[in-house]
Amino acid sequence: MTPQPLYYDCDTGIDDSMALAYLLASPEIDLVGVGTVSGNTDSAQAARNTLALLQLAGRDDIPVAVGAADPQAGTYAGPVPHIHGHNGIGDITLPDPVQSAVAEHAADLIIRLARAHPGQLRLLTTGPLTNLAEALRREPELPSLVKAVTIMGGAAHQSGNISPVAEANIGNDPEAAAEVLAARWDITLVPLDVTLAHTLEEDDRQLLLDSGRPLPTALGSMLDLYFEFYLSTYGRRCCAIHDPLAAAIAVGGVVPTLAPVVDVVVDTTDGPGRGQTICDLRGQYLNYPPQPGAHCRVVLQTGPDTASCLIQRLLTL
Amino acid sequence: MTPQPLYYDCDTGIDDSMALAYLLASPEIDLVGVGTVSGNTDSAQAARNTLALLQLAGRDDIPVAVGAADPQAGTYAGPVPHIHGHNGIGDITLPDPVQSAVAEHAADLIIRLARAHPGQLRLLTTGPLTNLAEALRREPELPSLVKAVTIMGGAAHQSGNISPVAEANIGNDPEAAAEVLAARWDITLVPLDVTLAHTLEEDDRQLLLDSGRPLPTALGSMLDLYFEFYLSTYGRRCCAIHDPLAAAIAVGGVVPTLAPVVDVVVDTTDGPGRGQTICDLRGQYLNYPPQPGAHCRVVLQTGPDTASCLIQRLLTL
Repeated sequence: MTPQPLYYDCDTGIDDSMALAYLLASPEIDLVGVGTVSGNTDSAQAARNTLALLQLAGRDDIPVAVGAADPQAGTYAGPVPHIHGHNGIGDITLPDPVQSAVAEHAADLIIRLARAHPGQLRLLTTGPLTNLAEALRREPELPSLVKAVTIMGGAAHQSGNISPVAEANIGNDPEAAAEVLAARWDITLVPLDVTLAHTLEEDDRQLLLDSGRPLPTALGSMLDLYFEFYLSTYGRRCCAIHDPLAAAIAVGGVVPTLAPVVDVVVDTTDGPGRGQTICDLRGQYLNYPPQPGAHCRVVLQTGPDTASCLIQRLLTL
Repeated sequence: MTPQPLYYDCDTGIDDSMALAYLLASPEIDLVGVGTVSGNTDSAQAARNTLALLQLAGRDDIPVAVGAADPQAGTYAGPVPHIHGHNGIGDITLPDPVQSAVAEHAADLIIRLARAHPGQLRLLTTGPLTNLAEALRREPELPSLVKAVTIMGGAAHQSGNISPVAEANIGNDPEAAAEVLAARWDITLVPLDVTLAHTLEEDDRQLLLDSGRPLPTALGSMLDLYFEFYLSTYGRRCCAIHDPLAAAIAVGGVVPTLAPVVDVVVDTTDGPGRGQTICDLRGQYLNYPPQPGAHCRVVLQTGPDTASCLIQRLLTL
């Protein structure tokens, strides 16, 4: 099978780094470009991290474009050093990248790649949706050029992580998320319902550290800080699998076991629900009857071997 | 044990009728008053239904007060004949009540009863919270006079029933619910998470019809329409146990198996989240650590025998 072209938009980020590595290890897809956005770290630092990771994997042929520095409303709230470190990658040091980011804005890279692969390009996002919303504004026909969009973000039945109902990627730019989720493309939403339900454990981290390969080893190192943060969530050193799970679902390495296609809207009010992904899951007792016009598949469950599938693929790098 | 005084506020309603019957069958409490509000039917019709049901049980000594006809914002949207029938009780005919509603407003009845039983009165609500909010405004010291408040309403992890996130009792008067949930009393919220998770089946209905007792038989008759409505939820004739479950939890006949005390706010915006009970359940992986100031116990699970406990008690009437 010919690898499918995939563009990845991220705020690199420890779990974005894992997602990037997962993509590089995936024969199903051809990573044709990466764009960055401010979230876990700012968009410029995210690009430096991405270029350094690609170089570590010997894949500095892949173009990296810096995207939006600020969300649509307001300004970037700043990095989260207690989660991702001061540099976004757990304060580990990687060799300086030889390559630089390309000159174009991530939104323009998306549009260019979509036009180069009409009807074929897949989009994966694991940060705020600012760049995708910007691309939609610059090219309203984008949905018809794109094969599918996979988004790590939101919370359906489960709680949020930056408010009782809002997840960080959506909550950090609700206006952009509202535009992207309303656009008429096939969307797969990978919410906290599944990404918090599976964890990587200390044994998994050790496998990465012992791999003898530069990128998996770097991931194992940066997970040290991330595991420490997740003590406050799980009560033990481990981590959720937000971004790598979205990558795995985007390429088909993990297949959801429950993922109804339902209406999803984003709360853009200034009330307590701001940033919530409101998913219409009222059909749950009837196995989710079709909703006319719905175009968002919300992943509610994946198999029990999800975390192990992720690690196994990362170890092939 | 001396029965505890309990005031019941309702929008009678088929499942309110079941809750009322459950209360009458409960030796743990003394039903000292009932107030009505517009919801399943209008507050005046709800009072007529309540008086007729009390008479059927030979308990027309219990005062019934008509409460608010309209929610705080806007006007009453009208009854829901496809769920509760045109008369609120599944279009069955009951003997006309001899007693009339008392002359005072339900909010004043609440205040009078609270003062008569300082620190002892329990409140149970299975309709919009308009009367409780009105009572709070007329007597700001009410929370210190009341022992506990049990509210059927809201949705925590699970979906709403009048919107993807809003449940009817809260969503039909979000402003009142916001005031009641913010007041400093001990609240137990019984949301759709548990009331939709348990069902009464055709066999249960038959037990009521065959009881040979007037009130259970009337309940069995009115459930016919209610079961028909729930075809659209469950795909079979049966029903959720919203209001009777709240009654059972209020009197201690059903004890929750998972009910963390967490912060709860009501979305009163005009956005897509309007009427949602936003419960801070982010502590779920740590068994819900204490939240300073939280005073709302959110019932997330009850035992597998919940529905059978309800029916067994109703058959003792």
